Amino acid sequence: MQLSRRMNYLKASEIRDLLKLTEQPEMISFSGGMPAPELFPSEVIRQAMNSVLAEKSEIALQYACTEGYTPLREKIAHRMEAKFQVRLTKEQVLVTNGSQQCLDFTGRLFLDEGSVVLCESPTYLAAINAFRAYMPRFVEMPTDSDGVKPDCLEKLMKTIDGIRLIYVIPDFQNPTGNSWSLERRKAFMDVISRFDIPVLEDNPYGELRYEGRHLPSLMSMDKKGQVVFAGTFSKILCPGFRVGWIAAEADIIRKYALLKQGADLHTAIATQMCIHEILETFDLESHILKLQQVYRSRRDIMLDAISRFLPGYVQPSRPQGGLFLWLTLPDGMNARELLEKSLRNKVAFVLGGSFFPNGGHENTMRLNYSYSPEAVIVEGIRRLGEVMV
Amino acid sequence: MQLSRRMNYLKASEIRDLLKLTEQPEMISFSGGMPAPELFPSEVIRQAMNSVLAEKSEIALQYACTEGYTPLREKIAHRMEAKFQVRLTKEQVLVTNGSQQCLDFTGRLFLDEGSVVLCESPTYLAAINAFRAYMPRFVEMPTDSDGVKPDCLEKLMKTIDGIRLIYVIPDFQNPTGNSWSLERRKAFMDVISRFDIPVLEDNPYGELRYEGRHLPSLMSMDKKGQVVFAGTFSKILCPGFRVGWIAAEADIIRKYALLKQGADLHTAIATQMCIHEILETFDLESHILKLQQVYRSRRDIMLDAISRFLPGYVQPSRPQGGLFLWLTLPDGMNARELLEKSLRNKVAFVLGGSFFPNGGHENTMRLNYSYSPEAVIVEGIRRLGEVMV
Repeated sequence: MQLSRRMNYLKASEIRDLLKLTEQPEMISFSGGMPAPELFPSEVIRQAMNSVLAEKSEIALQYACTEGYTPLREKIAHRMEAKFQVRLTKEQVLVTNGSQQCLDFTGRLFLDEGSVVLCESPTYLAAINAFRAYMPRFVEMPTDSDGVKPDCLEKLMKTIDGIRLIYVIPDFQNPTGNSWSLERRKAFMDVISRFDIPVLEDNPYGELRYEGRHLPSLMSMDKKGQVVFAGTFSKILCPGFRVGWIAAEADIIRKYALLKQGADLHTAIATQMCIHEILETFDLESHILKLQQVYRSRRDIMLDAISRFLPGYVQPSRPQGGLFLWLTLPDGMNARELLEKSLRNKVAFVLGGSFFPNGGHENTMRLNYSYSPEAVIVEGIRRLGEVMV
Repeated sequence: MQLSRRMNYLKASEIRDLLKLTEQPEMISFSGGMPAPELFPSEVIRQAMNSVLAEKSEIALQYACTEGYTPLREKIAHRMEAKFQVRLTKEQVLVTNGSQQCLDFTGRLFLDEGSVVLCESPTYLAAINAFRAYMPRFVEMPTDSDGVKPDCLEKLMKTIDGIRLIYVIPDFQNPTGNSWSLERRKAFMDVISRFDIPVLEDNPYGELRYEGRHLPSLMSMDKKGQVVFAGTFSKILCPGFRVGWIAAEADIIRKYALLKQGADLHTAIATQMCIHEILETFDLESHILKLQQVYRSRRDIMLDAISRFLPGYVQPSRPQGGLFLWLTLPDGMNARELLEKSLRNKVAFVLGGSFFPNGGHENTMRLNYSYSPEAVIVEGIRRLGEVMV
């Protein structure tokens, strides 16, 4: 049977294959991007779902509106103002199956074969995979630990033909953990506002800041309706419900709704109603403070263990939030050889090279610090150190 | 901002726009394809979800495997054997967000721009919309109330270039309610087995038979691994959880898993585990018998009301199962004018023309009989009759 040409561009994620390996007993995994399961507010979620299914089952179990559960869309709009300084109405919000679905739909909405996607270097692996289904070409924007370099961006915008989407993660980026400075945010918006190209601001980690002051979202600086924002409850509540959202101008949301209708009609309504109930009855903001506290401490423990157990030539990022650390090895070293050894020594990480759509950078690695308890983090870094000597 | 070319092919479903109209008070809606909400086993579902969230929350709220919850995949494989006479392992099953997502992924897996999809005439509107995102050309196979005509199919297979997918709904089709005869099923499989083209057997209604004997699924007659089967819990349990499945050869399932990973990582794990718990603790088969009883009676009531209240020139289908009736008006009559009048008289249906990808057939209409109680069905058909004189 003949498959579509796009299947030539899609391959299994190395993270995913690794996740299977990491199911071995005694394996310490720094590979996934999973929240700490012991911090899920399980009892709150159970009670909220119970109340939805006891009191509103005829709605919660039936087909529902493609755009999402209206009261939840209103709550999301309200939270977006409090958290990201963007004023929205419910017509500017569409509920998706996690923010991954926003990545897929964004590719579907804006990309034709051969279209150019500008992205950070490195960028989120699963975004590369989502966009690849639409067969674009990726151009990496020169990026340092403060974000995309605006002069380079301007040059790219003026010289590259066929740019149709700019994809960025300004807050505590996956994979590096780096965040854009305020100056870089302003300069970025200044450059892109002179072009008519949509920007996807992927923001799963923005509420998980452990130090420093909150910086404005790109969407809050957007005067043209050019920014599409992808948000999610996966990192601040739980990923297992797969509830995220897209925020954008209402006429763009209507296009996303057309895509959502064809893709899966709507996101499960029972889980949407449960999250709405949680937002009504639970102090999510205090819960997020608790997450920040635990993850801050895990980050510190991991950075400390790195300085104790890893060779001095390892350069770690020092993220102010999010779930990930990024390690850079000396030029010429290959993290793949290290990964093979470290898996045998029962510790897993993700190859940094996977996060560069055009390859290279084999001397980099991504470590997750949110999932493992502190003692496990120390032991995992110690094991990693054993195979790095 | 420039949108992708595929957006030119996508437009809002008339059903969806109608569903908004039907939210008016006192409107009787025969338009959606909704199950009867009063028949949802709400208490069973509530208890199952409660037990999952009380006992297995660290799994139910976390990220999960792309292919689906393994014990649920095993149960689905087992039920597929009991219900559709197909022997499967869990590696041949992938869980999706309702069977709509299978339609989307099937387009994504097999179609390039300009590829030909063969479909019944008429065929399911939302499948047309799902496939349109991949910009194929639709060729309608000559179809009567016994199914696709095999001699016509063979001719099409031999003369049309670029056929990449055959999409069919052999059991109680949406929109007509018609089912393929055993002879037609055999003849269809005989023809297509001589070609290397995948067949998508969409089967949301197969378990809702109200009379006549069960007929084998196309997949059970497939000797080559050519048939992909789309199933769902939406019609036999509840649609609000958005849990469906794809059954196919293991190597094809691996391709679907790649697509699922890029599209939304996985289907909500809490709802999958809840359905697994229900299959463990609840007699779903007795529940389906109850659905059959109620829907059979609603079908009979609607057919009876049609013969009493509608003009003699209206030709209804007489489905042996499923959720829909199909009405054919005399040639030259336009159901759109009738719809405008009937909406003013507070009764809604769907234009049959929407179900023909290449247009025409304006003299047809689809009525749903599963959603409304019997007295409402009678009153709705009476109202329809009032505007048909």
